[in-house]
This record gives sequence, C-alpha cells and structure tokens, in this order.
Amino acid sequence: MRIGIIGLGLIGGSLAYDFRALGHTILGVSRQSQTCQDALSLGAVDQASQDLASLAHVDVVFICTPVSVIDAIAARLIPHLTPDTILTDVGSVKGSVVNTLTPLWPRFLGGHPMAGSEDTGIHAAQARLFAGNPYILTPTEKTSPDVLAIMRGLVGKLDCHLYDCSPTVHDRAVAWISHLPKMMSAGLITACLSETDPEIMKLAQAFASSGFRDTSRVGGGNPELGCMMAKYNREEVLRSLYQYRQSIDQLTNIIENSDWPALEILLNQTQTERPKFL
Amino acid sequence: MRIGIIGLGLIGGSLAYDFRALGHTILGVSRQSQTCQDALSLGAVDQASQDLASLAHVDVVFICTPVSVIDAIAARLIPHLTPDTILTDVGSVKGSVVNTLTPLWPRFLGGHPMAGSEDTGIHAAQARLFAGNPYILTPTEKTSPDVLAIMRGLVGKLDCHLYDCSPTVHDRAVAWISHLPKMMSAGLITACLSETDPEIMKLAQAFASSGFRDTSRVGGGNPELGCMMAKYNREEVLRSLYQYRQSIDQLTNIIENSDWPALEILLNQTQTERPKFL
Repeated sequence: MRIGIIGLGLIGGSLAYDFRALGHTILGVSRQSQTCQDALSLGAVDQASQDLASLAHVDVVFICTPVSVIDAIAARLIPHLTPDTILTDVGSVKGSVVNTLTPLWPRFLGGHPMAGSEDTGIHAAQARLFAGNPYILTPTEKTSPDVLAIMRGLVGKLDCHLYDCSPTVHDRAVAWISHLPKMMSAGLITACLSETDPEIMKLAQAFASSGFRDTSRVGGGNPELGCMMAKYNREEVLRSLYQYRQSIDQLTNIIENSDWPALEILLNQTQTERPKFL
Repeated sequence: MRIGIIGLGLIGGSLAYDFRALGHTILGVSRQSQTCQDALSLGAVDQASQDLASLAHVDVVFICTPVSVIDAIAARLIPHLTPDTILTDVGSVKGSVVNTLTPLWPRFLGGHPMAGSEDTGIHAAQARLFAGNPYILTPTEKTSPDVLAIMRGLVGKLDCHLYDCSPTVHDRAVAWISHLPKMMSAGLITACLSETDPEIMKLAQAFASSGFRDTSRVGGGNPELGCMMAKYNREEVLRSLYQYRQSIDQLTNIIENSDWPALEILLNQTQTERPKFL
C-alpha cells in the first residue's frame, strides 16, 4: 500500500517505521522542512514533503497531529484526495473528531493507538512502539464495512491488541483510566499548594516519597495534554469528575463517622479490583 | 549502648542491623519465637526474647510494632524499665501516639523513620534502609533536652536526614504527601468501579496503562495501612480531604465553564510546583 502520514512526531514517525518495515510505501508530510529531512535520513519514510498535495494518490492517510488541528488539516487535505482513499487519525479523543470528519469524508475511520512515552518528535519515534498495546478503531453506523476491514488488516500487523468500539464508548472508557487520573492527580498538587504554613509546606516537600511521586506524576505532566482531554472530551471528563467527587465524599463521610469497618471493606475492594485494570 | 527493639519486622529488623553494625548491643523482642530465632540467625540482634522483661536494663527502647498496638505494648513494657531509659517509636502518625505515651513515660520521644518497602517481616529487613531518607523526631515542650540530644546523636548515625517538628506539624505534613494520596487514589478506583456498562468497564480495564497504574497504586495497596492513617490521623486526613474536594470542585468548575485559559494556568502551576516535592 501507499500510506500517507501527516505529522512526523512520536506516533506518526513510529507508524512510519513499522509500516515501511512491513513493505508499504510511506509518504510523510510535516510543516517543517527539517522534520522532513530528518524523517528521510532516519529511514522512517520513502518520501517527505511539506505539501499535502503530495498525498493525492495514496491508499490510506493517517493524520498524526495534535487533536486540536485534526479538523483544519483534514479540511485542507480532502480537496487533494482520490475518492477511495481511507482517512484515519490517531487522536486520543474520538467523539469530537469523528463527528467533525465523518461528514467531510465518507471513508474516514477514527483510530487511537494507545502507546506513547514522555518524549516527542521524530527522534523519539521507534519501531514496534504499538506492539502489545491497545489500538482502538471507532466505527459508526456510517462506516463502510470495507473501510473497517482494510484498517483492521493494516493496523493488526503492528502486533497491537485491536479493539472496535463506538466513539462514545471509547471516550467514556479513556475518561476513567486516563483523563480522570490526570485531573485528580492535578487536584492533589493544587490541594497541597493550598497549605499556608511555610514550616508544614517545607516538611511536606521534604517528606514526599514514592506515594506522592506516583500519584502526582500525570497531574504534574504536560499541561497541553490535560487541556486537550478536557476540551475535546469535556462531557465524559465531567461525568467522571462528578462520580469521583461522590467517591471522595463517601470516603470523607466514612472517616467523619469513624466507621473503620466500612473503610476496611472499601480499601479491601480497591485492593482486590485494581489488578483487573493492569 | 544497649538498645531494645520491640517488633522485629522490616523497620525494627533494619534498625537492628544498622545499630549493631555501629557497635551497639541489640536486644530484640518479638511475640513469635520463630522471629526471635530468625533475627538471631540472620545476625540482626545479639539477643532475642518473647519477654518484655528482657529489656529491664537498656538505654533506649524502640517500639517498632504497628501503630494500633504501641500504647498496649508501652503499658506492658513500662513496669520493667529503669527510669533513665529512653523510649521511642517508629509509628507513621505521631499526635495520638505522643499524647498517649508522654504521660506514661517522661523520657518518651516520638519518631518516624520514613523508609519502607512493599515487603514486611524480618526477612525484608536490610542494612542502611534509612540512609538518605527522612527521620523525624517529634519533641514537645515536655521533652527533656538530653533525651532529644541523645536520640539525635543515635539516629543521626543512620545517615538519614534528621528533622525535628511537633507531632501536629508532622501529622499535617504527612497527611498532604502520604495519607491524602492514599485516599484520593482509592477514590479513583471506587469511581471507576461505579461504571455500570460492562462494555465500557471491560475496555477501561483493557486500556488502562501507566497513568492509571501510578495514580491507583497506593489506593490499591495495603488496606490496613489506609485504615491506620485514617484512624490515628483522622483530623488531619479530614482536613486534607476537605481541601482536596475544593481542588476537585475548582477543576470541575473550570471545565464546566470551558475556561481553557484558567485550566492551562492551573496545569502549568502543577507542572512547575511538583518538582519541589521530589
């Protein structure tokens, strides 16, 4: 196949490495000429261009840009595409992207490869980044069966765990295990920062160890990522936060009532259930 | 010095190794004869006994049992002690322990070595567990200066970072960075468990990765530890939970209002401030 990849960062570059290793021809597009040169010299792509028109004759295009620009990129890309080209993306929220792109391009199918690292850019890209990780495709009732079949066949070769679900189900599931953790972890840091006694703050900072480090990591991570989650998955993030607030209230009430048997039951349940998520 | 150590688990056993290596004579006490034999054969102690009366003539006694039994152990130990013996403990909450033991033994000084691992028991004990980690002593206005000086000299030799603060300041500081993280992390798991759609639950479990793993780790850990924190540091844990709820409400309001500039400011702040705790 001839595969176009727009956005040659961690995800786009890693897809390029894997698909090229599988024998496909990779046409990369980046805004920056340096990135195009790097992608070529690293061997990630067969051709690289700053021009979306270079993707006029490809079988599949992966938009691998930040979620915030997917719709603008798609609008500029679509006039160049031939009608049977499949269009997909790798955004970590799906409802808003799918709602916007489906009317623009009938052969659009949303996707979300759940792999990543703290690093970004073409130099962070690596072969087999997706192997063993979930890759979610989000068909709707409008998705043509052949588009879904072709995409399943293509990304299935990445040795990922392939899932199909609706965009809404995807967004609700990732709200629980990715977006809510980001928000509640940020909330921990802002709560600690509310301490007004400088002696206590100094000691809290000195005493913090692995428990604080782990629970605060994502909340102290990339701010743009958190803003993207909240903006593009607003409804499901709010839904998870409302439920989370109930959980915090439940814990608070148990402790206010010194109901230690209830606390033990609750903490035994969290201990028992957590491994099912790992 | 002759040092008594009651409770030969991870902390007691590790203190025994270090103090013995520093030339002190270590008298261990455990409820279980097997633990006494193990401590002797591992070389952690010079003598081991199931009888608190064996500590009649020591300079310092460390109570290294769970917080819940410190007061009962102290009450049974005190009739055997000579008046100049210093009594200390290693409990991770201090207000309740100090309030109970100070009237029973004038030469009591609370302590909290902040080191540990997931493992427990004498076989998990190790030399130099405390090196590089905080060790907090919690004197009050009733603490004799010579008791504080002797204890500072003794535990300072563990190459730990030594801190003095009041029991209240200690308990407030550890509520922020240890006890609140435990509760908010448990709340994440219970919130996720509230999902009633089996498809979403199955996918959430399949999609969970490092962000969920880290934020849920302490909440899915030892339930007894969480119950101990809540029971013996109830007031400060509640204080931190009330503040945390305000932080969650603030985040929720920002997202409800789609106030993305405010969210960016907040998440930039958490990113900037977190490293001060690490």
